[in-house]
Amino acid sequence: MAICRFTNARGQAEYAFYRDHQLCPLSSFAHDAPNEWSLLAGNSDWLAKLPQPTDSQWQPAPQRLLPPVAHGGKVICIGLNYRDHAIETGADIPTEPVVFSKFDTALIGHGEPIRLPRIAHQVDYEAELVVVIGKTAKQVSIDTAMDHVLGYTCGHDVSARDWQNGRPGGQWLLGKTFDTFAPLGPCIVTTDELPDPSNLRVRMHLNGEVVQDSTTKQLIFSVPELITHLSQIVTLKPGDIIFTGTPPGVGAARKPPVFLAPGDTCSVEVEGIGTLTNPCVAEGSEYSDSA
Amino acid sequence: MAICRFTNARGQAEYAFYRDHQLCPLSSFAHDAPNEWSLLAGNSDWLAKLPQPTDSQWQPAPQRLLPPVAHGGKVICIGLNYRDHAIETGADIPTEPVVFSKFDTALIGHGEPIRLPRIAHQVDYEAELVVVIGKTAKQVSIDTAMDHVLGYTCGHDVSARDWQNGRPGGQWLLGKTFDTFAPLGPCIVTTDELPDPSNLRVRMHLNGEVVQDSTTKQLIFSVPELITHLSQIVTLKPGDIIFTGTPPGVGAARKPPVFLAPGDTCSVEVEGIGTLTNPCVAEGSEYSDSA
Repeated sequence: MAICRFTNARGQAEYAFYRDHQLCPLSSFAHDAPNEWSLLAGNSDWLAKLPQPTDSQWQPAPQRLLPPVAHGGKVICIGLNYRDHAIETGADIPTEPVVFSKFDTALIGHGEPIRLPRIAHQVDYEAELVVVIGKTAKQVSIDTAMDHVLGYTCGHDVSARDWQNGRPGGQWLLGKTFDTFAPLGPCIVTTDELPDPSNLRVRMHLNGEVVQDSTTKQLIFSVPELITHLSQIVTLKPGDIIFTGTPPGVGAARKPPVFLAPGDTCSVEVEGIGTLTNPCVAEGSEYSDSA
Repeated sequence: MAICRFTNARGQAEYAFYRDHQLCPLSSFAHDAPNEWSLLAGNSDWLAKLPQPTDSQWQPAPQRLLPPVAHGGKVICIGLNYRDHAIETGADIPTEPVVFSKFDTALIGHGEPIRLPRIAHQVDYEAELVVVIGKTAKQVSIDTAMDHVLGYTCGHDVSARDWQNGRPGGQWLLGKTFDTFAPLGPCIVTTDELPDPSNLRVRMHLNGEVVQDSTTKQLIFSVPELITHLSQIVTLKPGDIIFTGTPPGVGAARKPPVFLAPGDTCSVEVEGIGTLTNPCVAEGSEYSDSA
């Protein structure tokens, strides 16, 4: 199934079934619909028992959704995980996963604006498949790694290259974690519907033009390999997410380079999940959905 | 005042006044004692109105405390922020703060064991002053930065050098964020009692021997400078914490190098706060308080 999170008429975050810009709140089916966190906290059995909405129960989704995982979990990111992307950045092909992170204050949902910071001048796009953890994982084997996945969503690893690279200490964190730099959504497609993430087409559309186009078949480290590796070091918990890396075609590697500007629209499309679209605005500018 | 968090007889996390291995639960004074998060979420006014415990109200603190901030916030860390430490690692003196992070699954409290991973062979100690954010901060000026601080605590930035350095991509995250690699406590001393963090002695005692000894006067980037800088990039929220960097004397810089081993005891002592002590055990070994 596909699950999104949105702000209901009472101003509360709520989960809903999702399909193609339509939603059906889980509260339509169950008075005990879980709150945002407990939905992810191992409640996939509860979810599986819900009836599917009938055609008349679907309603148009609002233009903006919330990120489908709530704040408070880990936002783990894998760098240089497509061979061609590693080569285009001038990096060596990694021999083990390159891991960095974003803070959860960077998360935004489908339709929410990416705010381009005044102090960053080389903001780049990166389309990614994102794994959502459903069950606690610590030191799990490759054979059981996938049992810990709730589902998948689309992610945009927005990256200020002038803050990611060439700074003292060489840490990427700040360039990756400006507020709004982690668009996520529109929905989580659970593993019953999307059991195999190993050959999904991943594309970035910039103002309607395809600028990245690859498949997860090209991942250097597969989803189960990433989960196994990460779980050797940290306890993965329900609601934690893993950005799995971006294909070639990023703006910084183009000649001349292409960076995001106010008015641009970015759409991350992952096969079997959907499309995550976010407009870009200048920090501090007013942004209206009708603009 | 000084505030700790502990597990009460009913198995629940609770906040308490703290002094020198004694505590007095906040629930002794108020039936509306806030839960763990809301205490930090800007409730310093509520705290300030509580009466001080009388001598008879203090009770011995348990041997283990919880980390004084709950899980879910940012664990921000500053690297190379003492000139002599930057030099001992062979790094350049940074011209702007070097920022990395840990995941909150690394947090442990006073008395809890640091588990030395089977797969890490160069686990090092780092004593640090830690800032606890009390009010949301975004793009704050140097003049108002300190208004956003709830208080200070002691932190231990445990660091697996063989995972921090020399790996593909050069990111420090994994080496810094193994489970149990962020001891914190024993208490938060609020700004009414500790208004000025600019000249506090910071020491690490390894098995009783002083191995780091400096003061925050030696910080390259001061607490208000760090808050101002970070808030240009991310929204700082109540409960977020900032490890401010470590003085010289780390084990990796010694000749021969000194790394942590099962049976070692680490104590971070910060003037005006107290001492955060944690034993080291081998991952997977049983650890008993009476051992």
